[in-house]
Amino acid sequence: MARAHNFNAGPAGLPLPALERAQRELVDFEGTGMSIMEHSHRGKAYEAVHNEAIALIKELCGVPEGYDVLFMQGGASQQFATVPMSFLQAGKSADYVITGGWSEKAYQEAGRIGKVRVAATTEQNKKYTRIPTQDELQVDPEAAYVHITTNNTLFGTQWHYVPEVGSAPLVADMSSDIMWKPFDVSKYSLIYAGAQKNIGPSGVVVVIAKKDFIASGRKDIPVIFRYSTHAENNSLYNTPPTFGIYLMRNVLAHVKETGGLAAVEQRNRKKVDLLYSTIDSDPDFFRAPVEKGSRSYMNVVFRLPSEELEKKFVAEAAKKAMVGLAGHRSTGGIRVSTYNAVPHESIEFLVSFMKEFRKTSPAA
Amino acid sequence: MARAHNFNAGPAGLPLPALERAQRELVDFEGTGMSIMEHSHRGKAYEAVHNEAIALIKELCGVPEGYDVLFMQGGASQQFATVPMSFLQAGKSADYVITGGWSEKAYQEAGRIGKVRVAATTEQNKKYTRIPTQDELQVDPEAAYVHITTNNTLFGTQWHYVPEVGSAPLVADMSSDIMWKPFDVSKYSLIYAGAQKNIGPSGVVVVIAKKDFIASGRKDIPVIFRYSTHAENNSLYNTPPTFGIYLMRNVLAHVKETGGLAAVEQRNRKKVDLLYSTIDSDPDFFRAPVEKGSRSYMNVVFRLPSEELEKKFVAEAAKKAMVGLAGHRSTGGIRVSTYNAVPHESIEFLVSFMKEFRKTSPAA
Repeated sequence: MARAHNFNAGPAGLPLPALERAQRELVDFEGTGMSIMEHSHRGKAYEAVHNEAIALIKELCGVPEGYDVLFMQGGASQQFATVPMSFLQAGKSADYVITGGWSEKAYQEAGRIGKVRVAATTEQNKKYTRIPTQDELQVDPEAAYVHITTNNTLFGTQWHYVPEVGSAPLVADMSSDIMWKPFDVSKYSLIYAGAQKNIGPSGVVVVIAKKDFIASGRKDIPVIFRYSTHAENNSLYNTPPTFGIYLMRNVLAHVKETGGLAAVEQRNRKKVDLLYSTIDSDPDFFRAPVEKGSRSYMNVVFRLPSEELEKKFVAEAAKKAMVGLAGHRSTGGIRVSTYNAVPHESIEFLVSFMKEFRKTSPAA
Repeated sequence: MARAHNFNAGPAGLPLPALERAQRELVDFEGTGMSIMEHSHRGKAYEAVHNEAIALIKELCGVPEGYDVLFMQGGASQQFATVPMSFLQAGKSADYVITGGWSEKAYQEAGRIGKVRVAATTEQNKKYTRIPTQDELQVDPEAAYVHITTNNTLFGTQWHYVPEVGSAPLVADMSSDIMWKPFDVSKYSLIYAGAQKNIGPSGVVVVIAKKDFIASGRKDIPVIFRYSTHAENNSLYNTPPTFGIYLMRNVLAHVKETGGLAAVEQRNRKKVDLLYSTIDSDPDFFRAPVEKGSRSYMNVVFRLPSEELEKKFVAEAAKKAMVGLAGHRSTGGIRVSTYNAVPHESIEFLVSFMKEFRKTSPAA
């Protein structure tokens, strides 16, 4: 069967060459007579893959000196807990900027561990249609850290600036937009991202963090949850999810071969601008709730004039092998996830379908 | 290239049919035009795999009513922390039976979280050559739980009885021997096992636990670490490691097709008895440190008369595509990991090599 048009919110589509490479060598990795997942994590074959994945992240993201790249497990949801466990020192509080469901969850989990504060929220009637402006941020200069979620999969918003937070360490959940374009790592003390949107399969979390920040983490928590444990052991303290890291290596190698993050950004902007311009060409029918300056390049959300039409849209699209277009169960509507691996042709195909669907639907 | 003879301690060899199935459908899962790792964890295709994996564990292990099967992340090392976080209630202490490096680590991590007690240890001069007898266990009848490690990969020992612990809940780390034979789940309150030895790739932990025990867990810890969170959400609270669970499903389906755990045990006993009888046939040369009644069917350890001979043994075996025979860096010697997926032919091949090596070596 031909490839589906995969608009899933995550786990999401992966670059076909990265998958085909995995398929070719699944049973016999580089002539070793074993699958990469059968290799010891302390053996040469796997360690080369592991270190290549780290080197590719450093190279592609321009990770500066003084930072570590770590691989962890448990998804962003576990980072919601381990960040405050490590960095929310007694007597301090942590600032959270609330821009959607995931930042809410991060805030709530941190609140079970220590003192938290809302530095800004754009919640209105349980919806989030924009990112706060710099002026709206009320950052506690003594905050243990300031936490943001750079892209919001549920509501389709995305930060298009890096907030100034003074001397407080900036921590970012980049699960749904890491490497969607070049970005300045030096502005952050800690970045974490579940791999399963832009850079790999589920089960691997990438952490990019300042060594000094890692060293400042609490030592009175279980060894396994300390970032320093993983930093000191090159993410080999315990058995890592070796196949997931291998697959991520394949994705990152493909990103490098196809021009790095500058090229990724160009492709993303071109395809997503096409989609937004289609939406904006008929705003009474394709109703985009998000303020233009806050629109996400990873998750494009819109409503149709009725829920009945939305259902019909999703069902008819599915017949044409377009997958994952229903909005999140908490928000409804249509959501088109347009992560790095979604090809331009899939957006063109969707746009044609949208125009056709519009034509055959009653006037709004 | 032909398959290697994989004696790795973990990640370990997997059944070839399970890998070949993954290879066939890596790019196109069941005609969906997507890899299984590109499917949403909330979609029908993945959920069917997820639920099949759970059902296979229940069927193969004879999991009784009143138990949940969970998939978690972070390896056994994370369970070392989450078990005491959840079940070591204030005012109580937990009992640990120390039989090797991994049970030591579990004990130490628990000691960072609450009060712990050693119910027995078989440590002698930093070595562990046996499992304690029932009479040696000094269980605190008020213990929050009693923790054992059913198989010890470093020292090659294995519990061949289930200890009586009175009314205290029994918790077992079965990472390195789960499903090596049929076992009685009802004797345990909680079983955990990293998949990467007997049942799948790294990155997935299987938990089999009594619902009542799960419900007794502390509620004042982060949501993500509560077993109840995963039980209430069918292990879909957050994105699970979907490909790892899929691959485990392939392994378990293969186990079922080839006769279930009774057949697994028969194959394991046949192949490992052959190996031990070879060792015992020349005890001055192949020096087995473990007491016979405590010998592991998963990790067979022995020494040769000199470290020089051991190095030569490992190097010459490697030339014949026998992988993973060096003992753990903390113990030295030779270690043959003989997990479920190691075929009888690999043991026969090794045994021939051992006999040949013996013949051409100077008398001990």
